[in-house]
Amino acid sequence: MGVTTATDEATETVSASVVGGSGFTGGELLRLIAGHPNFELTQATSRQYSGKSIGSIHPNFRGSELRFTEPDDLDSVDVLFAATPHGVTMEHIDAFEDAADTVVDLSADFRLATEGQYDDWYDGHSCPEKLEKAEYALPEVNRENLPGADIIASGGCNATATILGLKPLADTGVLDDAHVVVDVKVGSSEGGAGGGEASSHAERSGVVRPYAPTGHRHEAEIEQWLGLSVSFTCHAVDMVRGASATCHVFPDGPVSKRDLWTAYREAYEDEPFMRLVAGGSGSYRYPEPKAVAGTNYGDVGFELDAANKRVVVFSAIDNMMKGSAGQAVHAANVALGFEETAGLEFTGLHPVGSP
Amino acid sequence: MGVTTATDEATETVSASVVGGSGFTGGELLRLIAGHPNFELTQATSRQYSGKSIGSIHPNFRGSELRFTEPDDLDSVDVLFAATPHGVTMEHIDAFEDAADTVVDLSADFRLATEGQYDDWYDGHSCPEKLEKAEYALPEVNRENLPGADIIASGGCNATATILGLKPLADTGVLDDAHVVVDVKVGSSEGGAGGGEASSHAERSGVVRPYAPTGHRHEAEIEQWLGLSVSFTCHAVDMVRGASATCHVFPDGPVSKRDLWTAYREAYEDEPFMRLVAGGSGSYRYPEPKAVAGTNYGDVGFELDAANKRVVVFSAIDNMMKGSAGQAVHAANVALGFEETAGLEFTGLHPVGSP
Amino acid sequence: MGVTTATDEATETVSASVVGGSGFTGGELLRLIAGHPNFELTQATSRQYSGKSIGSIHPNFRGSELRFTEPDDLDSVDVLFAATPHGVTMEHIDAFEDAADTVVDLSADFRLATEGQYDDWYDGHSCPEKLEKAEYALPEVNRENLPGADIIASGGCNATATILGLKPLADTGVLDDAHVVVDVKVGSSEGGAGGGEASSHAERSGVVRPYAPTGHRHEAEIEQWLGLSVSFTCHAVDMVRGASATCHVFPDGPVSKRDLWTAYREAYEDEPFMRLVAGGSGSYRYPEPKAVAGTNYGDVGFELDAANKRVVVFSAIDNMMKGSAGQAVHAANVALGFEETAGLEFTGLHPVGSP
Amino acid sequence: MGVTTATDEATETVSASVVGGSGFTGGELLRLIAGHPNFELTQATSRQYSGKSIGSIHPNFRGSELRFTEPDDLDSVDVLFAATPHGVTMEHIDAFEDAADTVVDLSADFRLATEGQYDDWYDGHSCPEKLEKAEYALPEVNRENLPGADIIASGGCNATATILGLKPLADTGVLDDAHVVVDVKVGSSEGGAGGGEASSHAERSGVVRPYAPTGHRHEAEIEQWLGLSVSFTCHAVDMVRGASATCHVFPDGPVSKRDLWTAYREAYEDEPFMRLVAGGSGSYRYPEPKAVAGTNYGDVGFELDAANKRVVVFSAIDNMMKGSAGQAVHAANVALGFEETAGLEFTGLHPVGSP
Repeated sequence: MGVTTATDEATETVSASVVGGSGFTGGELLRLIAGHPNFELTQATSRQYSGKSIGSIHPNFRGSELRFTEPDDLDSVDVLFAATPHGVTMEHIDAFEDAADTVVDLSADFRLATEGQYDDWYDGHSCPEKLEKAEYALPEVNRENLPGADIIASGGCNATATILGLKPLADTGVLDDAHVVVDVKVGSSEGGAGGGEASSHAERSGVVRPYAPTGHRHEAEIEQWLGLSVSFTCHAVDMVRGASATCHVFPDGPVSKRDLWTAYREAYEDEPFMRLVAGGSGSYRYPEPKAVAGTNYGDVGFELDAANKRVVVFSAIDNMMKGSAGQAVHAANVALGFEETAGLEFTGLHPVGSP
Repeated sequence: MGVTTATDEATETVSASVVGGSGFTGGELLRLIAGHPNFELTQATSRQYSGKSIGSIHPNFRGSELRFTEPDDLDSVDVLFAATPHGVTMEHIDAFEDAADTVVDLSADFRLATEGQYDDWYDGHSCPEKLEKAEYALPEVNRENLPGADIIASGGCNATATILGLKPLADTGVLDDAHVVVDVKVGSSEGGAGGGEASSHAERSGVVRPYAPTGHRHEAEIEQWLGLSVSFTCHAVDMVRGASATCHVFPDGPVSKRDLWTAYREAYEDEPFMRLVAGGSGSYRYPEPKAVAGTNYGDVGFELDAANKRVVVFSAIDNMMKGSAGQAVHAANVALGFEETAGLEFTGLHPVGSP
Repeated sequence: MGVTTATDEATETVSASVVGGSGFTGGELLRLIAGHPNFELTQATSRQYSGKSIGSIHPNFRGSELRFTEPDDLDSVDVLFAATPHGVTMEHIDAFEDAADTVVDLSADFRLATEGQYDDWYDGHSCPEKLEKAEYALPEVNRENLPGADIIASGGCNATATILGLKPLADTGVLDDAHVVVDVKVGSSEGGAGGGEASSHAERSGVVRPYAPTGHRHEAEIEQWLGLSVSFTCHAVDMVRGASATCHVFPDGPVSKRDLWTAYREAYEDEPFMRLVAGGSGSYRYPEPKAVAGTNYGDVGFELDAANKRVVVFSAIDNMMKGSAGQAVHAANVALGFEETAGLEFTGLHPVGSP
Repeated sequence: MGVTTATDEATETVSASVVGGSGFTGGELLRLIAGHPNFELTQATSRQYSGKSIGSIHPNFRGSELRFTEPDDLDSVDVLFAATPHGVTMEHIDAFEDAADTVVDLSADFRLATEGQYDDWYDGHSCPEKLEKAEYALPEVNRENLPGADIIASGGCNATATILGLKPLADTGVLDDAHVVVDVKVGSSEGGAGGGEASSHAERSGVVRPYAPTGHRHEAEIEQWLGLSVSFTCHAVDMVRGASATCHVFPDGPVSKRDLWTAYREAYEDEPFMRLVAGGSGSYRYPEPKAVAGTNYGDVGFELDAANKRVVVFSAIDNMMKGSAGQAVHAANVALGFEETAGLEFTGLHPVGSP
């Protein structure tokens, strides 16, 4: 990790590549790296679109000269970002590590700590010996372990929204572990490029569609970081980007609004991408995905339901950004010693529709 | 209520009027009454659009000769449907009862049983002495009291979705009263015609927007019919019609999938508008508002989360239909002795977008 | 065609089947036939979903007992509706005619009059000898030839919108044949069930996407019925159902608003499904697809642009209904002597989103 | 205009204010100025929201300390941007010029060259003597007159899309002036914040709604810059941002695809914000608003319709950016001698829904 010592200056650049650049999160990585002051984008691979310009797939790159190359011939770079389907990185991790000092993976392959968790929640792991050295990307919960990490695993989008929403409250120790309900609403980009009948515009427009109503794999990550088991249910709704987690929790004892503000302020007041949004005036009084679309912000807010001894916590992110590619770049910034917000300064649009 | 004795024949017709016909639920009433084999639509009032054709407001009535009239001059009819804002019917209930044998109100004015509830949840009641004789419209929970009712109060849309979803399970007595979470997603028609900035297309498109995160007034109705207090939170999502309630509940003891099927089948197998949807193949495996858009169906389904000792119940309705105007017509059919499904036969469309 | 003589009474029923019942227009046919007073639905075929309930594909049929059967084993019926991809009916027309007295085809296979047209616009025709006896389904232009027809070809949705919009004006003989611009906006259901990447929700949401900007095959039908060549361009927009044709035409001489009203009133005043919408007050002043969603209406309106010597004609239909399955049933009603509006009475919803 | 001489260095900053900062284009100006390397945002006024934080209205400014101030007390700045309704700037132009060296107005007040045009298309002009010194903002057609301009008038969004689409072709002199059809599709942000019933989500979702079918005021601007009268019709469609102009034109003589490429390449190859998009592979083959959402790009493409001797030109912009606030900042950059792309580097998102 020699590069980190050289990054004292804001103008220092390292080379970066994207494996799996034609998918949605791969496209976001390309966008973020191309606009990053410290990264030089050297390669974007795509087996399916090898030879085509990246702008033919991602129209925001119209005019770019860069073309996709075959994933079997990797450039040597400082940082390799992998935006491949689950299972690919664990198969190619040796090749990725040969090509790059730092590997940042956006799949689930290196998110969990133990082989046993992969056996429980996925279909086993082909490279369990590297799980230990992999670091979870989310700086808000794992910042101290990122500098110098060789393998960084960007968190799942739904898990990220949930962890960011509940971590400050869980850390206070008041949560009733048996009744933590997380009701998530997500956009269609979460399904990735391609899609089948259920993802077609005619079938998916206007939906409020339960999917993975129980047993969602992201529960594993959430439990890992919150120390709580959560009752988790996802719904597809009519937006493209965004994940919104509404967490209904029942503290073991009395909790005041002031307690909540204190817990969340302490947790997030120094975080560059976390914003507290709870009440106020106007149309936007709580976190909602529209208000963070295209950005790396995580908006968190809450409300007290005294009658039911409940706290409702709202957490909203852009699933492609804070929930994936943005989190990956943020973690890489921390790992390599760059300014944390470098390349992630976009503040979002208003108005914006179904971003 | 002499009309009920004369309705033995399917061809019997009674006269019906709509007070407040220019709003969204008023328009649905007009549509349902105009297509009903036993109703003859005689009057539609609108203070704002008096003199205008109903088709100038509701484009599905293009070509109709009927025009809105002033609400101060009510025809004498058999049934008067009131689709006015909360507070109007309680002020005019004497005039409405003078004009009609049966009054069916779509507002909240006569939904609750006692004056105390109105003091708790609303701003008091101007005509509390009539609360006792008013009947809640939802036939699935109050069918036996509807025949011959003088005042019928159509339920709130979110309350209806919740009650339909949880009643069979609540009736088994297994629910843990302290942790009943209901997370509702609703369409923009719930806000009614008109709207302000927050309801404008630019601001409301693509939203997952919490509103009334705690203390929603529909909790009163739900508690009245389920005997449970519920932790209730609403979200605006990007659809026009529809209310979807996801109920996360924690039974006091073990519950099996078979127990659930038994409870829901027994409750709904003879109900003409209730459908159980739980699993199966294809894109539509659980209740979702798209699948009931424009219809009077209530779709209910569930899933067991053994790991968390949770049952997730999904309930989907069209907020304008089963959640308002359709429920009102259904109740009127029961009250007047007509075929229950009369005028409510529309089976919905596929595909359909954001209905 | 013995059945036609027996249909004098409204209660007369004929048997009907749908070949290709799992697609979008197939589902609409099932819905219309199931709700039709004179049709008895006896069979729905689907090679892909044979054995599955029709409700597993079309959620508005939840609870129906009917299951898809293999298309190779056709029941003998009075009327067979084919909702198969282009090219299928021309291959199987003998089998279809063996199975049914009347074949109503929703594909392009029998829409054009001559083999030469198919060679020009499609990839040749495998059964050209039957083109002559096939009749175009659109009653507004071909009613007199439908009674007793053996093969009926439902028109293309974009062509239907255009023909309905321009026919009354074209018939007056004033149109400048060289500058007839038709700019069409269509919903995603036009692409049919299935779809690929371009049809996925994430890619297709919020689009204004030109496709087939020139040389659209529907031009052939339009020219056949209007006697004009049209400069035709289609755009995909964010709705599921609907086709809207904006026709910009330049009459050879002066045309007044009164001339327009006269031409359109004379053409459509006796048509049960045509409505003139031109100006007025409120939000809905011109034809738009929302106002006809789910219905068999064709709404047509116009405006005069004196400064540019232009007439703008707006025509809006539901592409699945008036533009396909509804037109087919309407034509079958005419062919078999039923009430023209039988089974097509649905008047649409208000409000309705992206229907 | 002393400031221009001082801007040789990229780090030079000038002070800027936004009058009317709570509307949609005002919010975009705030966003662009706040992220601009050469502007320092000193004031945002709003009569309605004076005293409130700008983040309470524009959620992308959550956390900003800036608050709206009363418009009657203007700071002295180098550049004042006015995002006020039509008619306001002409009333306050003296005050604006007192406050700032350069006034950039986003309304229609100073877009046209003569008082006569205002009498024809608007309701007269209260300050006609200043029309002559005002410069149209669009650099692609008026770059040479912007440096040192005192009053700059940002173009109308629909006019901008049309002018950018047709200018290169019109300049070749081949257009048939009598048959230039421009069919525009626009998003809901064009109506501005606030909105009434027709702009409510329930009424506007899923629309293809003709408005201003003839006589649209933007025709005046278009004619001014193209030297052509255009047959112009607008449609509201379901997106929030975006304006898409499809121009159907009939050249006087033969035009080849190569001629088109030559004309458009020559016009736009050095333009930093213009991209030619005509054909190719993938889902995005022509200009469409999604592909430019949030950016200052203008995408232009075309297709030849030999059969109808027609050229179809597609032009897509973000109405809030290239069609308003982005154009204004671009023009200010030119006027003040900054890098043309300064503050306008955002490249857009993929995927993106109804942006």
